[in-house]
Amino acid sequence: MMKNSETPICDLGFGVKQESAQPEALKKAVHTRRRSSAASTCSFSSACFTGSSDEEEISPRDKTQRSTTGFTDFCVKNINAQYAFGRREIDIAEQEMPGIMTLRKRAREDKPLRNAKIVGCTHINAQTAVLIETLVELGASVRWAACNIYSTQNAVAAALAEAGIPIYAWRGETEEDFWWCLDKCISANNWQPNLILDDGGDATHLMWKKYPELFKEIKGIVEESLTGVHRLYHMSKNGKLTVPAINVNDSVTKMKFDNFYSMQDAILDSLKRTTDIMFGGKQVVVCGYGDVGKGCAKSLKAQGCIVYVTEIDPICALQASMDGHRVVTLNEVIRSVDVVVTATGNKNVVTREHMDRMKNGCIVCNMGHSNSEIDVNSIHTPELRWETVRSQVDHIIWPDGRMIILLAEGRLVNMSCSTVPSFVVSVAAATQALALIELYNAVQGRYKSDVYLLPKKMDEYVASLHLPTFDAHLTELSDEQAKYLGLNRSGPFKPNYYRY
Amino acid sequence: MMKNSETPICDLGFGVKQESAQPEALKKAVHTRRRSSAASTCSFSSACFTGSSDEEEISPRDKTQRSTTGFTDFCVKNINAQYAFGRREIDIAEQEMPGIMTLRKRAREDKPLRNAKIVGCTHINAQTAVLIETLVELGASVRWAACNIYSTQNAVAAALAEAGIPIYAWRGETEEDFWWCLDKCISANNWQPNLILDDGGDATHLMWKKYPELFKEIKGIVEESLTGVHRLYHMSKNGKLTVPAINVNDSVTKMKFDNFYSMQDAILDSLKRTTDIMFGGKQVVVCGYGDVGKGCAKSLKAQGCIVYVTEIDPICALQASMDGHRVVTLNEVIRSVDVVVTATGNKNVVTREHMDRMKNGCIVCNMGHSNSEIDVNSIHTPELRWETVRSQVDHIIWPDGRMIILLAEGRLVNMSCSTVPSFVVSVAAATQALALIELYNAVQGRYKSDVYLLPKKMDEYVASLHLPTFDAHLTELSDEQAKYLGLNRSGPFKPNYYRY
Amino acid sequence: MMKNSETPICDLGFGVKQESAQPEALKKAVHTRRRSSAASTCSFSSACFTGSSDEEEISPRDKTQRSTTGFTDFCVKNINAQYAFGRREIDIAEQEMPGIMTLRKRAREDKPLRNAKIVGCTHINAQTAVLIETLVELGASVRWAACNIYSTQNAVAAALAEAGIPIYAWRGETEEDFWWCLDKCISANNWQPNLILDDGGDATHLMWKKYPELFKEIKGIVEESLTGVHRLYHMSKNGKLTVPAINVNDSVTKMKFDNFYSMQDAILDSLKRTTDIMFGGKQVVVCGYGDVGKGCAKSLKAQGCIVYVTEIDPICALQASMDGHRVVTLNEVIRSVDVVVTATGNKNVVTREHMDRMKNGCIVCNMGHSNSEIDVNSIHTPELRWETVRSQVDHIIWPDGRMIILLAEGRLVNMSCSTVPSFVVSVAAATQALALIELYNAVQGRYKSDVYLLPKKMDEYVASLHLPTFDAHLTELSDEQAKYLGLNRSGPFKPNYYRY
Amino acid sequence: MMKNSETPICDLGFGVKQESAQPEALKKAVHTRRRSSAASTCSFSSACFTGSSDEEEISPRDKTQRSTTGFTDFCVKNINAQYAFGRREIDIAEQEMPGIMTLRKRAREDKPLRNAKIVGCTHINAQTAVLIETLVELGASVRWAACNIYSTQNAVAAALAEAGIPIYAWRGETEEDFWWCLDKCISANNWQPNLILDDGGDATHLMWKKYPELFKEIKGIVEESLTGVHRLYHMSKNGKLTVPAINVNDSVTKMKFDNFYSMQDAILDSLKRTTDIMFGGKQVVVCGYGDVGKGCAKSLKAQGCIVYVTEIDPICALQASMDGHRVVTLNEVIRSVDVVVTATGNKNVVTREHMDRMKNGCIVCNMGHSNSEIDVNSIHTPELRWETVRSQVDHIIWPDGRMIILLAEGRLVNMSCSTVPSFVVSVAAATQALALIELYNAVQGRYKSDVYLLPKKMDEYVASLHLPTFDAHLTELSDEQAKYLGLNRSGPFKPNYYRY
Repeated sequence: MMKNSETPICDLGFGVKQESAQPEALKKAVHTRRRSSAASTCSFSSACFTGSSDEEEISPRDKTQRSTTGFTDFCVKNINAQYAFGRREIDIAEQEMPGIMTLRKRAREDKPLRNAKIVGCTHINAQTAVLIETLVELGASVRWAACNIYSTQNAVAAALAEAGIPIYAWRGETEEDFWWCLDKCISANNWQPNLILDDGGDATHLMWKKYPELFKEIKGIVEESLTGVHRLYHMSKNGKLTVPAINVNDSVTKMKFDNFYSMQDAILDSLKRTTDIMFGGKQVVVCGYGDVGKGCAKSLKAQGCIVYVTEIDPICALQASMDGHRVVTLNEVIRSVDVVVTATGNKNVVTREHMDRMKNGCIVCNMGHSNSEIDVNSIHTPELRWETVRSQVDHIIWPDGRMIILLAEGRLVNMSCSTVPSFVVSVAAATQALALIELYNAVQGRYKSDVYLLPKKMDEYVASLHLPTFDAHLTELSDEQAKYLGLNRSGPFKPNYYRY
Repeated sequence: MMKNSETPICDLGFGVKQESAQPEALKKAVHTRRRSSAASTCSFSSACFTGSSDEEEISPRDKTQRSTTGFTDFCVKNINAQYAFGRREIDIAEQEMPGIMTLRKRAREDKPLRNAKIVGCTHINAQTAVLIETLVELGASVRWAACNIYSTQNAVAAALAEAGIPIYAWRGETEEDFWWCLDKCISANNWQPNLILDDGGDATHLMWKKYPELFKEIKGIVEESLTGVHRLYHMSKNGKLTVPAINVNDSVTKMKFDNFYSMQDAILDSLKRTTDIMFGGKQVVVCGYGDVGKGCAKSLKAQGCIVYVTEIDPICALQASMDGHRVVTLNEVIRSVDVVVTATGNKNVVTREHMDRMKNGCIVCNMGHSNSEIDVNSIHTPELRWETVRSQVDHIIWPDGRMIILLAEGRLVNMSCSTVPSFVVSVAAATQALALIELYNAVQGRYKSDVYLLPKKMDEYVASLHLPTFDAHLTELSDEQAKYLGLNRSGPFKPNYYRY
Repeated sequence: MMKNSETPICDLGFGVKQESAQPEALKKAVHTRRRSSAASTCSFSSACFTGSSDEEEISPRDKTQRSTTGFTDFCVKNINAQYAFGRREIDIAEQEMPGIMTLRKRAREDKPLRNAKIVGCTHINAQTAVLIETLVELGASVRWAACNIYSTQNAVAAALAEAGIPIYAWRGETEEDFWWCLDKCISANNWQPNLILDDGGDATHLMWKKYPELFKEIKGIVEESLTGVHRLYHMSKNGKLTVPAINVNDSVTKMKFDNFYSMQDAILDSLKRTTDIMFGGKQVVVCGYGDVGKGCAKSLKAQGCIVYVTEIDPICALQASMDGHRVVTLNEVIRSVDVVVTATGNKNVVTREHMDRMKNGCIVCNMGHSNSEIDVNSIHTPELRWETVRSQVDHIIWPDGRMIILLAEGRLVNMSCSTVPSFVVSVAAATQALALIELYNAVQGRYKSDVYLLPKKMDEYVASLHLPTFDAHLTELSDEQAKYLGLNRSGPFKPNYYRY
Repeated sequence: MMKNSETPICDLGFGVKQESAQPEALKKAVHTRRRSSAASTCSFSSACFTGSSDEEEISPRDKTQRSTTGFTDFCVKNINAQYAFGRREIDIAEQEMPGIMTLRKRAREDKPLRNAKIVGCTHINAQTAVLIETLVELGASVRWAACNIYSTQNAVAAALAEAGIPIYAWRGETEEDFWWCLDKCISANNWQPNLILDDGGDATHLMWKKYPELFKEIKGIVEESLTGVHRLYHMSKNGKLTVPAINVNDSVTKMKFDNFYSMQDAILDSLKRTTDIMFGGKQVVVCGYGDVGKGCAKSLKAQGCIVYVTEIDPICALQASMDGHRVVTLNEVIRSVDVVVTATGNKNVVTREHMDRMKNGCIVCNMGHSNSEIDVNSIHTPELRWETVRSQVDHIIWPDGRMIILLAEGRLVNMSCSTVPSFVVSVAAATQALALIELYNAVQGRYKSDVYLLPKKMDEYVASLHLPTFDAHLTELSDEQAKYLGLNRSGPFKPNYYRY
């Protein structure tokens, strides 16, 4: 279950791309992306809103830019006006990303990415900037584009360019800009990429499609999104994946943080910022009891809510029961609950029929990984009146005066109305960096042309990088104990199928 | 322990007024009020920020205003431009104030305040507007001024004026305006007040001082602030209180909501909105384990923080221990904690010495009821650099680069960086309304010229007004059971000293 | 709300004694006591069951006994055979009673009870023995009888006698024995008591009735039971109380431990030991949301139960709602709950009508302070079959085969099926000792012939005695802070009406 | 991680049997079993202690027994005297085993085990009797022996025999008896077994070794213990497993209950029954943060303990941190904690060195799955004094008087000092029954001669059988939703690698 904002975008894009890889289809995919993700572009940092005033007429592609040191291999918006602010944002992010910073320190001497040449295509914001600069410190040369036309923090891109990193990205790219930027990153003179770090699969797809000779030569791909992973598995199944790839989306440490831990905070924050709800005594139904639902239910209950759970899977339903939540169908409680939270990954979980029966003032929001969990289309009908009372908060008013409160128009409320803590990004970034190191340094033949999970030991290493934050001290096995357990003293400590 | 924003203001004002009631002193008190409360004026509603753009040059006192129905007995800012927006804010607030709305419905027929003439002096915002209009529905005629020169929501004041209520208030009054407004409320033609609803004691003071003959005739005073209550007890002690007064600040239901329940939400919200902190595993010290500290500690622990508590009182310290928190002195943990929260009501709980030893990135905030819990003056020194990174968030940077994060400049972070849920205000408003009804309808001689707590039965009634929100159903005593317990079937159910 | 086992006993005895103090009535009271308390006599220690095999034919009164040192001023059962075992029980109890042991150490030099002569009448078990020996170490000479004919741990009584303490008590006294023992304690030669420590009021009553001249001379009475306190207030009201008395039953620290904290553990323990129930997902209704109900509800919810609450008081009901429990009437949930827990102090809270509708296998138990919360008489009818499946566990079987599980025959399940942790007794014992010290050392005139609560500062001192157990460190006020708060640096820190 | 009592037994037995299958070795294995498991034989039911008085001289093998209906194909102890009591125990167990009873009802008509002939070798107690009788109701004929010479509840065995089930088992079998009983179950006249249900692998081993021609013909083996599963994998690896087997030990539903949920209750119950500890404020270190450690830590924290965690695995350590526990090494906290709980599965986690430094009164217990987590041998030295203060509770006293409290002599405290709730056994029993049904009805060729996990769908079915207990209602996928998710509407709903 994936929690990144690009999920819905790429889900749509994926279907299109799968059927035909023609330029038109690609444009359509990116166009779809624009509509569906505009609202969530600012979710990564409270500070990103400051970038909204720099919109101007001239495209960055039509301007000549130059860093204070004379560097020109980049294309961003207003480098000189913004880089200082962007640098401070990066500085602040560094303080809250202990894992990736520790990795930077530990591996700085070794330079495990010496001579690595990485094409990157991810969101560009303060946190990913910390990742990018870490890769450079570890010895890599990189070229970077944005994976989303709306999510770039321009000031951060400016700071990276000022630091001499070839970066091609700005907020509000057109679809053509998007592909132009990506192309500039892949096909530089005298620079043959040997690794891809991708978020959604576009860099992989473009290189495979347009530069097959380059593609064949790379050492591997690291992909972090659910959609990109699907595309890789699809390529692999069809025999088109000719290089190794690591799926970091399903890494244990990253998943626990993206889903369970992150959501514990996010549900409270999202509801509070939008509605000022008081949690005590509120009746809430959480649809879905996977890791996201578990995190939401736990926090809401702890704050005094009465939590109901809906589930399709008996095992998760039994867990919900044992954890002290009533397991119900949505129909049973829809008339009485104060809040409906979706966390299923499914579509049309909340239907018009449900919304017709909710009580006055019921809050409806989506924490899942699909934007279609709430059937928002069904309430875009003439007899219902929509009033936007705050940003991301709509009152939908029935003819009889009854009103429901829809957050973020049914999109991911945690992305639209809360923030992703830097600590969570730190876990994901460290996972990506380690996957790149693993692919780059693996002995010949260790990885075939297939999609791999991050080795358990690397996953454990990601976790260990974040322990000093908590002043947590690991216990070490004695030789005798390691032998008794049949383990290597330095791990991995669990079999792959272990359920954390 | 009081959680209203006027506390620190009035604490200062009180001292001054006590010594001398001369105009100059009063002005000074109000002036002090301005400086100390500016930051918290917007705390009552997320929507209040919308009012900030209507600042203009001409004073409301210099303009002739008229409602659409021709009403003119008021002085607000821009009635015609703003009343519609203000009305919607009131409508929204009504939906979240079930207690006061239920009271309105129940008592509408009886009109228990028929012919009551109330001078009101409180904050003026959507929630207090619901109270004001409820008093009117219950039969009272009212005249209303603001108790704070910065906290008025102009649009709400406009809506009240449009509805025909004599209201004298706008955001940004001068001190002279303040007293002029109050005077206009007290000394209207053909309108002799018989009740005062006060927040801070200024209406009481002015009437007692300037209109002693009016003052003698009133049936009673209801006061909701800690400061105003102190002033009343002082008057009583000195034999100057010639009418009954009810202290609603210490009502059980109100206190539990103002302190314990409200703070459970507010600590998480305040920290999250300002710092995007991830709670899991964070080490937090909560200074003070009264109701505020208990609420903070409970929520933080539930979200995965490791909570330490400091206390001066052995009984509260023992409670903290039994509740699973380590009880420490601040010195023991100051080098290792990630967050310091003050909730003591004391002064200089966090000193420069403490701040000199905090770890890099430590967050410091105040949830108590005094603005002096953190010795902020001690860090206004040349060698420390202050950087405001977001609204209400300052980085204070030591010469060695170490940095602490101070929220709301040490003022109440829950008022500055979070909101007071309407439900909490609903409890307070219902308490005030019932106190007014009690004083107005009490049989002759029931209340002497003294300060009373709200009768237990009224307090229970306030609670009962809020139960339908939770679909909560009370059990009724049988006659046999009531007799066994020695209780009246309709309450009160507990002795006055009962500890809830 | 009182949690001591003697409550029901004394409730009955009290009514009788009040009406007439004749021997016959007293006998009846004590006789009633026997029936109602037999089951709970062993509740104070798991080890007390070891005493059950020493029942024999000859009454202790008919045997000559002598300690190994030749001491003979006592009457217990089998001193020589049992004192060693009793001493070890006392040793173990001392380790878990940090408060009273610290007091012993601190006050050993001062001997604040030097020359005090105390008549004691309490349960006699390992924990009270620690109290008794502490009083002796503090300088007192004591004479001690049991307040309950069934609760004496004979081995402990033997150990006290062997240590030279005049003790008159054994398990299984007749009513005549009971009064004979008490008389022996009050009317010794050359020993004029000046303090009474009473649990239920019998020592007070006997001395006042039979030895009025002695009674007049005492410095004061400390009473720890709800019933005894009622009797004192009754005496006071009728002008018969000619000496000061301290009610320690309502001391803050003691009450919190007796009710809230103690019950958190006890509800889980009581249910588990009797029924092996698995808590997760169980639906439980807790009747009453005072401190006992709050403690039960909190623990059950934390272990995964879904908790419903019934309440008569709107304030407590609102607290339950805010704490995340549905507030219902018993009728609403009686068909669906798995467990019914009473904690009201009321009578007939669970009626035959309720029991007729419970689902098969429903567990019913009483945690309140009255034995009549469950109408057990109503199910002693011929058509229902009772099967005792384990000690304290009865299956009541309806003609249709449906069955409910009644614990402890409706008596206090926490007393019958769990234990009172020594730590809780330590708090009570320290409170009693301090009350005795206070009365004995008070300056002339400080206490009149009335019933007092323990002074707040003493209450705080009891708490402070128990902090070292948790390695808890108090913060001390600076002079400046104390002045700011208007407090003495050494306390008391809260007004008497403060709600912890 | 396995929580059954046979673990230590079979671990020992396994090693021996593996090296040589000679009778002497087998005897030794069983002998070892006796010593190591005696203390835990009564753990399955509080009622099993009633069986302890029926020890007599004559071996059951030397007596002729006959049921009231004339049935004689069994060997138990005192059928006539005990069957009625045993039947009632079974009746009680049925009420708390909803899953297996629902399965019984649902499959009674189908008789999915018609003509199945099952050799069973498990513990024999009220709960397993419910399983056995369910198998019979589903159409199977069974023959049953005990897997442990000490754990049989004789009354239950008698009830089964009285019901006409061939059962060969009694408490206190000799090793020879053990193999004789098992042989009687395998090699009956005119009865060719086609399924084995095994707990520890002894039935499998004996049939494979002594009756290879019978073994070849069976349809499959269901094994529920960790040890038995190890033996099967070993057979499979060595090419000796000639029939399919299902490992139910690692089924998802069963594991979650055996470890996480069961331990939440068990840690509190074990500590309370043995030590009467009050949980509030106690400092506890939990060694190991797998499912068992997670369950223990969660409950202890909820009851007010301050919990420290030790871990070797960084991922689990990070989880502990995020869940609000300090992660430490044992050395860091050993001097200050009140309780040490082991839950690692490792050996010598608590060493003599640790115990030398524990504070006076520290409680030490083992919740893990190995009996060697605490190095008990190291404290069986002359300078330390052992005092058994209650059953399963030893005080170990150092020469300086310092004392630690060791529970269950370091064996599994949850097995020795608590009980396994019937609900947990119900989950395991339903899992076993479904595995038997699956193997018996699988189409030819579906299962090879290998060891399989229970199919996910069956695992989900086990969970679904237990939902009615909680009145939990599953949501059903619409066709459209199922298609969207790529799932079959009836499940399985998750991939095999899903982490619940």
